[in-house]
Amino acid sequence: MCQLLALSCAEPTDVTFSLTGFAARGGLTDHHVDGWGVAFYEDRACRVFVDEKPAYQSPVAEYLKSYPIKSRNVVAHIRKATQGAARVENCHPFMRELRGQQWVFAHNGDLRPFGEIEQSPFAPVGTTDSEAAFCFIMNRLYAHFGNQSDIDDIDAVFDVIEQATRTLNPYGIFNFVLSNGKVQFAYCSTRLSYVIRRWPFSSARLVDGDLSVDFAERGTPADRTAVIATTPLTDEAWTFCEPGDLLMFHSGVLMRRAHVPVPADVLATSKYAPSEQSAVAA
Amino acid sequence: MCQLLALSCAEPTDVTFSLTGFAARGGLTDHHVDGWGVAFYEDRACRVFVDEKPAYQSPVAEYLKSYPIKSRNVVAHIRKATQGAARVENCHPFMRELRGQQWVFAHNGDLRPFGEIEQSPFAPVGTTDSEAAFCFIMNRLYAHFGNQSDIDDIDAVFDVIEQATRTLNPYGIFNFVLSNGKVQFAYCSTRLSYVIRRWPFSSARLVDGDLSVDFAERGTPADRTAVIATTPLTDEAWTFCEPGDLLMFHSGVLMRRAHVPVPADVLATSKYAPSEQSAVAA
Repeated sequence: MCQLLALSCAEPTDVTFSLTGFAARGGLTDHHVDGWGVAFYEDRACRVFVDEKPAYQSPVAEYLKSYPIKSRNVVAHIRKATQGAARVENCHPFMRELRGQQWVFAHNGDLRPFGEIEQSPFAPVGTTDSEAAFCFIMNRLYAHFGNQSDIDDIDAVFDVIEQATRTLNPYGIFNFVLSNGKVQFAYCSTRLSYVIRRWPFSSARLVDGDLSVDFAERGTPADRTAVIATTPLTDEAWTFCEPGDLLMFHSGVLMRRAHVPVPADVLATSKYAPSEQSAVAA
Repeated sequence: MCQLLALSCAEPTDVTFSLTGFAARGGLTDHHVDGWGVAFYEDRACRVFVDEKPAYQSPVAEYLKSYPIKSRNVVAHIRKATQGAARVENCHPFMRELRGQQWVFAHNGDLRPFGEIEQSPFAPVGTTDSEAAFCFIMNRLYAHFGNQSDIDDIDAVFDVIEQATRTLNPYGIFNFVLSNGKVQFAYCSTRLSYVIRRWPFSSARLVDGDLSVDFAERGTPADRTAVIATTPLTDEAWTFCEPGDLLMFHSGVLMRRAHVPVPADVLATSKYAPSEQSAVAA
């Protein structure tokens, strides 16, 4: 299964620590070997780095470790291909511009084809179910916000994403993270967890590597970070999402939550049912 | 003035040589110091690397030199800001997806505001005249090809770009390169040149650095590369475009040419009028 990582930070944050643990899953401590990618927002701009090589041996990952970028919003993904070849255009995160904002998306799961859909204005470049789902959501957002409605009305954006998620849900496992550079949306179809770091900070130790960070040495009262990941990256007290949780984070704060039920047949076919998730957490 | 570089190659080509000479202009041999960027196509995918630092001291440029990417189509840009701050979102090349193709654009020149324009579906993320012009062209392409027309009818694409160029031309200096990963479009408003390398190859020496390459050692009869740049990068026999030349390259071949006249007042205000261009070429 693919791995998702997203960060929502109140202040520009050096995300090397989380990326290091996450990248280790790209073939070193886990079997995720068909590419990886990361998107960093720097205010309005978004840099996307993707590689069709495993993260733990990717020169781009090595470069990023030596040149940390500070960011408030990050979306990262390690890919175990279920659909689409190991090619650059099939690597997450995917990016599209809507109303002068860059939007990025990464998916974990496997969707059956959802038939003839609107491919305008957004259409997939590659051959994954994931990019098709992203374009579906973006076309729904465009239909609502394309010309007039206020794209900064983030609750209205949430509503459109909730409806799109409800539509795509029956087609399979659909864990995702989605950001416009201000807000992080995250949906738990079968498996997702998060932790919020805030003042006063303590230390954390990576699950996937021999590395600890004492955030107390670095953090200020203004800092606050939500880390969202498929499975916990550290020994901190992570919250395991319930299947169906749609979450919205802003500046490290969980702003809104909705429940978009996961169809029983999807949960039943999942290799990562809630019971197994609990076992992982134990 | 900014610097443009584009390559159109019949075979995936290691473009390190051209990029090296080009990057030297980013603050080392020329006064272009407000950022740079490069977009590489790998089949359908396009990687974009941008930096708001001068190219000659950019860690991204350093990384790219140590990890050459082979590509058939490349668009690169060194930025001397005329409009918009030195921020990541203002760095060229800009990218948008249309009909499942990634399109990239870089501009050299300075356009006055062209008033109320269609900002749908494509709108600028940053504050440059260049990205606004790119979105203008993309919205024209969307109006024509958004739903039904054959986006692979490259002559029809050329016609739309020619019309858009004619519309934007009165607003100022508008040298640009634009690619969809298959074809390279290039417009000479005031200054642009190109060279075509083909079998049997000879050697070339960079104008901006102490570096020569003997292409004869590497090239095969299948190789063919068109290099398009603001000013010649090498001591080869470059062709200087006439102001008004709109060119279309595919696989290193100049496929089509049109003339979109540059208004006299634009030519008159240009600091890089044809006479100066000739002097440079001498």
